[in-house]
Amino acid sequence: MQPFIRFATKDDAPAIIGLIQGLANFEKASDQVVITADDLVRDGFGTNPKFWCYVAEIPGEIETEIVGMALFYPRYSTWKGPTIHLEDLMVQEEFRGQGVGTALYRSVLTFARERKVRRVNWEVLDWNTPAIEFYVKSGAEILKHWHVVSMDDQALEAYLES
Amino acid sequence: MQPFIRFATKDDAPAIIGLIQGLANFEKASDQVVITADDLVRDGFGTNPKFWCYVAEIPGEIETEIVGMALFYPRYSTWKGPTIHLEDLMVQEEFRGQGVGTALYRSVLTFARERKVRRVNWEVLDWNTPAIEFYVKSGAEILKHWHVVSMDDQALEAYLES
Repeated sequence: MQPFIRFATKDDAPAIIGLIQGLANFEKASDQVVITADDLVRDGFGTNPKFWCYVAEIPGEIETEIVGMALFYPRYSTWKGPTIHLEDLMVQEEFRGQGVGTALYRSVLTFARERKVRRVNWEVLDWNTPAIEFYVKSGAEILKHWHVVSMDDQALEAYLES
Repeated sequence: MQPFIRFATKDDAPAIIGLIQGLANFEKASDQVVITADDLVRDGFGTNPKFWCYVAEIPGEIETEIVGMALFYPRYSTWKGPTIHLEDLMVQEEFRGQGVGTALYRSVLTFARERKVRRVNWEVLDWNTPAIEFYVKSGAEILKHWHVVSMDDQALEAYLES
């Protein structure tokens, strides 16, 4: 069944949080999600939204169900200018293998093409082989020589006070 | 000599482009920089700037010289909410080892603390050992299991037309 892809609205925030938590569980980081549906509403659906989000809907027996989402936002490359970053692409486990992820992926890339950005970036876990194969087959490049570096607020506070 | 750190203005764009190109050369990607000083002015110093930038100045014999810069912008984590991404941190080769990079780094982290973000991210090349050691010593974490993925506009076009 073809999923219907549309921009998320604030009413989708609880479903999106569910998908975010599902992806964090899959990435073995289930305790890392601290944001709430209220945070998403404030940050993504007010004036000056900090991200965009597509959701994938499939008609269920009783009501239409959100089975996947792609959350993305602008970044800036000092080499290429404006770019798009795909933060999360997630499909509920029981709806995988039906083209939902591909439909979301194509939607984000189409959005990027319309914006005429020179690059789309995202990150993938090194053990997530199916995702890596999908991305490579689509023409994306895995930049194995670049490491992601992260400093959380506690480390930042400790460093600045040192 | 202590560098003076201040926010960049549009008049700094040519100096910033010089530093961007210098960093790309160091990263063995000298042909990758396609943006110009005009692009930087439009993207960073108009309404709704796409990035922020600090520059480091040192008084020279004739005039004050810009010897380093840090360019950064907001991102959004589906786990942590708003974050800051440090895109480039660069000090002219002949001014390294004098605390300029540390002063720029602390400025960006202080900015992040004032914004109360829960995380600051950036990327580093795996062979850039001095940078990695500096970051780890400061309390940042190198996320070795995450790969950066990139799709340029040509690959994107080819995929969407397939």
